Amino acid sequence: MRGAGTLPSSPFEELHRDAQTRARAGTLATAHGRIETPVFMPVATQGSVKALSQQVLRDIKVTAILANTYHLYLRPGLEILKKAGGLHRFMNWDKTILTDSGGYQIFSLSHLRKIEAGGVTFKSHHDGSLHHLTPEKVIELQAGLGSYIWTCLDICPPFPCEAKAARSALETTQLWAERSWRAYEKLEKPALLFGILQGSFYPDLRREAAEHLLRHPFQGIALGGFSVGEPKEKTWEILEATLKELPSEKPVYLMGVGTPEDLWEAVGMGVDMFDCVWPTRNARNGQVMTSQGKLYIKNLQFRDDFGPLDPECGCEACRNYSRAYLSHLFRSRELLAHEILSLHNVHFLIELMRQIASSVRENRFLEAKKRFLTKWRSHVP
Amino acid sequence: MRGAGTLPSSPFEELHRDAQTRARAGTLATAHGRIETPVFMPVATQGSVKALSQQVLRDIKVTAILANTYHLYLRPGLEILKKAGGLHRFMNWDKTILTDSGGYQIFSLSHLRKIEAGGVTFKSHHDGSLHHLTPEKVIELQAGLGSYIWTCLDICPPFPCEAKAARSALETTQLWAERSWRAYEKLEKPALLFGILQGSFYPDLRREAAEHLLRHPFQGIALGGFSVGEPKEKTWEILEATLKELPSEKPVYLMGVGTPEDLWEAVGMGVDMFDCVWPTRNARNGQVMTSQGKLYIKNLQFRDDFGPLDPECGCEACRNYSRAYLSHLFRSRELLAHEILSLHNVHFLIELMRQIASSVRENRFLEAKKRFLTKWRSHVP
Repeated sequence: MRGAGTLPSSPFEELHRDAQTRARAGTLATAHGRIETPVFMPVATQGSVKALSQQVLRDIKVTAILANTYHLYLRPGLEILKKAGGLHRFMNWDKTILTDSGGYQIFSLSHLRKIEAGGVTFKSHHDGSLHHLTPEKVIELQAGLGSYIWTCLDICPPFPCEAKAARSALETTQLWAERSWRAYEKLEKPALLFGILQGSFYPDLRREAAEHLLRHPFQGIALGGFSVGEPKEKTWEILEATLKELPSEKPVYLMGVGTPEDLWEAVGMGVDMFDCVWPTRNARNGQVMTSQGKLYIKNLQFRDDFGPLDPECGCEACRNYSRAYLSHLFRSRELLAHEILSLHNVHFLIELMRQIASSVRENRFLEAKKRFLTKWRSHVP
Repeated sequence: MRGAGTLPSSPFEELHRDAQTRARAGTLATAHGRIETPVFMPVATQGSVKALSQQVLRDIKVTAILANTYHLYLRPGLEILKKAGGLHRFMNWDKTILTDSGGYQIFSLSHLRKIEAGGVTFKSHHDGSLHHLTPEKVIELQAGLGSYIWTCLDICPPFPCEAKAARSALETTQLWAERSWRAYEKLEKPALLFGILQGSFYPDLRREAAEHLLRHPFQGIALGGFSVGEPKEKTWEILEATLKELPSEKPVYLMGVGTPEDLWEAVGMGVDMFDCVWPTRNARNGQVMTSQGKLYIKNLQFRDDFGPLDPECGCEACRNYSRAYLSHLFRSRELLAHEILSLHNVHFLIELMRQIASSVRENRFLEAKKRFLTKWRSHVP
């Protein structure tokens, strides 16, 4: 742990590498406490992990969340967040916040985006108002938000993407990464800056991107451009090739991943950090993660099933409410259904990461993975 | 406190009557703990107080809730509730549940309702399926739900209602009350049965209704047919006239009321129990109760107001979140806004009732009422 204003030269520490895989356990020192890795960070797009209070997040032992720079820039806006004393105080959240750069949202949500004058011009998805963001401005925004882990403005190519377009997007991303680093260097370094590694699904572009990022002392590497609709084999093939290019002293963050299966797979390849809307979004659709696989609370069979969501889970949802009650709440469109299912799903991934980390420390990662997946793929009774 | 299966001869005890008004403080003994009166019961229409978990209800010291027989009969249905071991176990709620009779909902929500064969036939508002309920069946339903305070099937006339129609509705309500009592008497008396006193806004009908109900040993009197769109002077005029007809040994429950102003007024006339969707419904519309009156969290002024919802409130919402954050959550349609505002509003009324009760016990009801209303009518800064 460290005070604001100074930065450890190497905030990440690899504590143990699994004997049979690339999986590793470590810690990332932040101004808001030490994060054990591998870590899953729930997504607080607009400054709230959907349907969960900050008290619930603390109760289920969330150590870091991801907030969206693009969304918070548009609403409530930097002025209000600065007046509040930053996003931590605005939200009343005293643990780590990682902010994405907004690049992904600009290219997926906003209208009429156009790369020009060294940045990107776009129309807000709320009201069509015109905005211009540059790499420097995005660093300034994250400084204003007061998050502790920042990322560089980038371009995330869609899948599939032709080689020429992928190269062009990467070149811009690289230029922006350099400009981001220079802007960051001028500040009093109150946070960590992660470079975003792009390159679509071209191994040579990914290699080039890795080499480029490593020429700058980014404190971590965020892997962007995955989970954009590609087939899973592509994900693992390119992810593995990319990870080979990265040194062990940098924490590696795979953006937008994932499901329990994806987490096991990616940790096994050496990834340390994850974020995904999956647990909260699926909860709102009635999809629940259990040790025996997914269940859809809408299914008729749960109407008179008085057992807990997951008999092996000790979360507040499983201690207090039955599948039958939650089935009723979900069918009745009660808001409490979203709260309880979201709590359970986020708790499930937090607890899963804790189990994965301990299997790594005890050199039984592959065995633990196999045991988990066998049950996960069995049928929810 | 008592075990199931036996009933105290007089579960209600008047502990203190205010020196200057008819306001009184008392207790109602139930199988789920003693309820201090006057009491406000939040509404759990479908077995959930909207957006609030049972843990939150316990935290903010809710001692009783109201559940809707009509809604729970249609969904999840009696069969599932019985299999669950009753509504308490289904919801995981160990404090008191009062159930309404469904009469109000049949006449306000369902389609094609028709009084016939000594009961009412109606089409479900969910799927148009045809149902027939009788006073006996409604007692049986409440026995199946396992609530502790039951009410009789009744007809709630609209406002305005012609004298002839009001008399006819009352006659049916009276007939149904008698049949309800007979059905209840045959059971092993696992709960209290409240008669519902109707009579629209005709003092003579209300008087007649009171006399009729008092001929049966109902353990409490529920005042129905108020809060149906009538002008407030009418409410107080008819309420006062009705209360004069009731003996002090029966707890009196004013259905569907109310706002803080209404609670002060009705307690001052001698009412003991209340329920209302107001705090939760308004929360979902962004309306917040504070010691300085109502505020609309949508209003522009709150966007950068970093104070709590109510500076005099100690609830979880006010301890942890600012008006600015809640304004942002509400504008951003975050579910957390509903959770936090609902928690605050329900806590506000629970705490208000506690204050009212203690002002009664200390013979300073009028002074406390005046002080509250002066501030309540001041402008939220």
